[in-house]
Amino acid sequence: MDLQALVDAASTRDWDTDPDGTVSVAVVGLGNYARNVSIPAIGAGDYTDLGAVVSGDPEKAARVADEHGAVALDYEAYVEGEAVGAYDAVYVATPNRIHLDQIRAAAGHGKHVICEKPLEATTERAAAAVDACDEAGVTLMTAYRMQADPVIRALGSFVAAGGIGEPTKAMGEFTFPVLAGSKGPEQWRLDAELAGGGALMDVGVYPLNTTRYLLGADPGAVEAMARASEPFGDRPDDPGSPRFADEHVHVLAEFPEGVVGEFTASFSGEAGTWLELVGSDGRIRVENAFVPDGERTVRLSTDAGDVEFSGVGADETREEFDYFAHCVLTGTPPEPDGRDGLTDVAVMGAAYEAAATGGRVAVERQ
Amino acid sequence: MDLQALVDAASTRDWDTDPDGTVSVAVVGLGNYARNVSIPAIGAGDYTDLGAVVSGDPEKAARVADEHGAVALDYEAYVEGEAVGAYDAVYVATPNRIHLDQIRAAAGHGKHVICEKPLEATTERAAAAVDACDEAGVTLMTAYRMQADPVIRALGSFVAAGGIGEPTKAMGEFTFPVLAGSKGPEQWRLDAELAGGGALMDVGVYPLNTTRYLLGADPGAVEAMARASEPFGDRPDDPGSPRFADEHVHVLAEFPEGVVGEFTASFSGEAGTWLELVGSDGRIRVENAFVPDGERTVRLSTDAGDVEFSGVGADETREEFDYFAHCVLTGTPPEPDGRDGLTDVAVMGAAYEAAATGGRVAVERQ
Repeated sequence: MDLQALVDAASTRDWDTDPDGTVSVAVVGLGNYARNVSIPAIGAGDYTDLGAVVSGDPEKAARVADEHGAVALDYEAYVEGEAVGAYDAVYVATPNRIHLDQIRAAAGHGKHVICEKPLEATTERAAAAVDACDEAGVTLMTAYRMQADPVIRALGSFVAAGGIGEPTKAMGEFTFPVLAGSKGPEQWRLDAELAGGGALMDVGVYPLNTTRYLLGADPGAVEAMARASEPFGDRPDDPGSPRFADEHVHVLAEFPEGVVGEFTASFSGEAGTWLELVGSDGRIRVENAFVPDGERTVRLSTDAGDVEFSGVGADETREEFDYFAHCVLTGTPPEPDGRDGLTDVAVMGAAYEAAATGGRVAVERQ
Repeated sequence: MDLQALVDAASTRDWDTDPDGTVSVAVVGLGNYARNVSIPAIGAGDYTDLGAVVSGDPEKAARVADEHGAVALDYEAYVEGEAVGAYDAVYVATPNRIHLDQIRAAAGHGKHVICEKPLEATTERAAAAVDACDEAGVTLMTAYRMQADPVIRALGSFVAAGGIGEPTKAMGEFTFPVLAGSKGPEQWRLDAELAGGGALMDVGVYPLNTTRYLLGADPGAVEAMARASEPFGDRPDDPGSPRFADEHVHVLAEFPEGVVGEFTASFSGEAGTWLELVGSDGRIRVENAFVPDGERTVRLSTDAGDVEFSGVGADETREEFDYFAHCVLTGTPPEPDGRDGLTDVAVMGAAYEAAATGGRVAVERQ
């Protein structure tokens, strides 16, 4: 794969076999991201449409359902299987700690599942989600939008084809000043029980998963440092009790052959997202790497020449849902499957243990 | 300090008081870097000239001395104090593990010292070098050229003035494919005994020291991962016995207030050097950060605006020697003094221990 082929690939779908049909999706959980990013993507998709919406807020559910000609359900009705004929698959976008409940319900109805990252709040619950879908014979995809991003997919092919030689190390950052958004300190992603952690679970999973994707490999051991200060260090209902360990987190992840990934994530500080992958014969840097539907800038220096490009790619959230639907329609297992999501939860669990103990922690293979 | 003031400062000497006089330097060790970078810088300096050269190779010493009108000495003559009237100060550019011997000799002759980084191969020997100069009452500067680089100095002032708010984390890399240079695998920097380690000691010290400079703080604990493979993993004279741990090294360094620095250095892989510093209200990225006399590119994003600049600054090696001479002429203690160099050797020693044990290691304050 030469550099021009890489640039061409970065604006091309490499998986589409043009199947017939459409997958109707029930969106479970109507938070900001689901309403403002995912539902428009489902509406715009070649192979998706919105079949139902599920929310604990009946007015919000009715409003969104009306806008899109979909069915509105509350959680109880969803779990009980009301209107299951209105959808073929479920998109789980609730707080992490209740993904398993929504996935079990979907699997019980024989519905395919695409679930937001991280797959669950704990390794045990993520493993149970994988088992539930395996047993029901339904597709489970973890919604890693980066794996549907044409730029990232092209880079994956380039690396796999030896474009940077043997990979030697990876580095990445996702700093998301969470309180600078529209939500205040009461949002669920700042509740360690619902989220399973802090910055690592919410945004650190991006450089971790994307590096695993680009390397085609999983870490076997991790070390980490983490800290949290006000207002992240104290639960509003229980001052002195930390919400979570990681307003800021730094992870060293040891991959096979001793390749190390350095990942950092923060819930405060000047925003920034980037990924860098170094190999024996080349180096890739992606700026604006993990911004939703953001324009990536890629800088490549290789023994065969250098290139910089941006302005290619596509809305990766739409790509993600179309890819999921394509998998369902063609009976293809998705690349970011449930086990992919489970692996990250296990790595992050080991990282939290490493941060707490100050020691290197082996990642149990899932 | 606003952004334009920063850009202006990045091409300005901020320390020069225009003193009278010149410092004649004896260059001890005539390796590539000393001959091709340091001696020209000393020749070009406002406050320096070349007084003597010391080498174990009499022909090389005579040739270089003739070119510059300096005195040629062998190591024995240097240690015995021959021609001490020909120089006021000593620049130590021998392998790390013998810096202490050259420093002791210089201190014994009452000569000021500028010593290449790292200050020595072990904490004990680095501490002994500091003591020797303290006892003799001579100046000891560690040759951290980044601290003399006008771009880095301007960024230091910017950070100290709160330009990025409260610093939250730092990241940096120096990957130097050492075998791609003019020297083969027999060079001393690949001999763990002479060098005191591998990539961390030789190039990892740049992001470490520069971050300490920019933060004005020292790490209290470190974690690390390291690996070495052929041809770095085996001593040529003793196959199966590793030369050193770190062809590749990754360090997490915990600074006060829980600020973490991530540093990586490699002796193989596509070359690259950069530094990134994140704060509550801004972010600095320096590309080409540690290349000798290289052109830095600085990208700054702050709450007060963004700026990118390059093409400023100056040959920081010349700045380094002029700064040293200025300190000697004015009786000013240099910022990168012996203790600064000693601290890095202690941090790196702790990092090697952390990599070997897989645990967090406290850095003993020196």
